[in-house]
Amino acid sequence: MWLLYQFPLCPFSRKVRLLLAEKGVGYEPVRESPWLRRDEFLDMNPAGETPVMVNAEKPGRPMIDSMAICEYFEETVDKAAMINGTAADRAEIRRLVTWFDVHFYRDITRPLLTERMEKRLVLRTSPDSGRLREAMKAAVAHLDYVDYLLDHRQWLAGSTISLADLAAAAQISVADYLGGIDWKSHEQSKRWYLGMKSRPSFRPLLAERMEVIAPHADYEKLDH
Amino acid sequence: MWLLYQFPLCPFSRKVRLLLAEKGVGYEPVRESPWLRRDEFLDMNPAGETPVMVNAEKPGRPMIDSMAICEYFEETVDKAAMINGTAADRAEIRRLVTWFDVHFYRDITRPLLTERMEKRLVLRTSPDSGRLREAMKAAVAHLDYVDYLLDHRQWLAGSTISLADLAAAAQISVADYLGGIDWKSHEQSKRWYLGMKSRPSFRPLLAERMEVIAPHADYEKLDH
Repeated sequence: MWLLYQFPLCPFSRKVRLLLAEKGVGYEPVRESPWLRRDEFLDMNPAGETPVMVNAEKPGRPMIDSMAICEYFEETVDKAAMINGTAADRAEIRRLVTWFDVHFYRDITRPLLTERMEKRLVLRTSPDSGRLREAMKAAVAHLDYVDYLLDHRQWLAGSTISLADLAAAAQISVADYLGGIDWKSHEQSKRWYLGMKSRPSFRPLLAERMEVIAPHADYEKLDH
Repeated sequence: MWLLYQFPLCPFSRKVRLLLAEKGVGYEPVRESPWLRRDEFLDMNPAGETPVMVNAEKPGRPMIDSMAICEYFEETVDKAAMINGTAADRAEIRRLVTWFDVHFYRDITRPLLTERMEKRLVLRTSPDSGRLREAMKAAVAHLDYVDYLLDHRQWLAGSTISLADLAAAAQISVADYLGGIDWKSHEQSKRWYLGMKSRPSFRPLLAERMEVIAPHADYEKLDH
C-alpha cells in the first residue's frame, strides 16, 4: 500500500491523487501540515513539501515532487495514460502542467493559501485584501487562457484528457475552495470544470474539508 | 535545425543546452531577453520565459518549458540517456531536477539574477546587499546538500551522470558567474563541478558572456 503525505488543500497532492484515482492505484492519505516543519517529515523530504509517497511494504527512498510522482505512475501503470500521444503532444501536456504548477500556483493558489489559510491557521493575522484582489484578478486572466485553449481543443492539451487537465483542476479547485474564482463570463472553463468535478476521481477530494476553513457555498455543487 | 531562444545567464536554457550537447543535437541559439517582454516572443510563449525551441524546418507549435523540452529529447534521441535506470531511479532524477530548478533557483539563482543582472541592465539601481548575503548563505546550505549526495553517490542521482547533474551544474554555473558561490569547505561539490566544467558540452557555455556583466576571475578556469 502506498502512503501519500498531504493536506486537503495541497494542489500538488490533489494532482497526484487525481492521477492515482484515474489509474486505479490504491493509497492511504496521511495528513501532513508542511508549515509545522516536523523533523520526521523533513528527514523524508528536505524540501519540506507535500506530496511525498512511501511504499509501506517496501520502505526505501520516499518519492518526492508531484511531477516525478506522476511520471513514475505514468511509466509503471498502463491504465488511463495521462501523458499520451506523440512526443510533441507529450511536450505540450508537460508545458501546461508546468503552467498550472508554477504560474497559476504562484499568481493565484499560493497567495490565496497564504492569505486565507496560513494567516488564519498559523499566523493568526488578517488577510491582506490587496493581495487577495491581485490573486483574483490573476485568476480571471488565467481562466481567459483556459477559455482560449478550450476554443481550440476538447481538453486542455488536445483531444483527450491528460495530466494537464488534472493539474489545472487541482489548482483551480483549491482556488475555488478559497473563494478565489469568479466563474462569470468564463462559460467554457466552467463547463470543462463541471465535467472534471463530476469524475469519480474528483468526488473524494470535493468532500474533504480543511479544518477551520469552510469552502464557499457552490464549491461542491456539480451544476455550478 | 532547432532554434533555441535564450540568454547567456538563463539557467533553464543552460540545462537544455547541456542536454542537447550531450546528445549531439544541433541547434542555433537565438538571443532573447525575456525582461523586454517582446510581443513576438509573448505570442510564442504566453509565460514569457526562456527557453523556447522552434523547429525551423517544421514551424508548428513551439516547445516551451525546460523540463518538457528535456523530456522530449530524452524520448526522441537515444544517445546519452539522462533520465535513466528503473522507474524509481527516474523519479529520483526528476526530484533532484525540481530541487535545482525550483529551490536552488528560488533561493539563489533568481535573487542573484535580480540583484546583479536585472538591477544593472534594466532597473539601473544598486543591488540590495542584504538579499545578496541571504542568497550566498542559501548557496552554502545547498552545496552542503550536494556534498551530502556525493558522499553517498558518484553522481547526484546515482552511479551515472543524469539530468540531475546537468540541472545542478546549470544553476550553479549561473550563480558562480555572478559571484554567488564560495567553494571553500565544499571540496566534494567543487570536484564534481570541475568535472562538469571539463565536459565538452559545458565549454561553449563557459565561454559566453552576458553584456555589461563580467564573471568573477575563476569562473572559466578548469582547476578552480
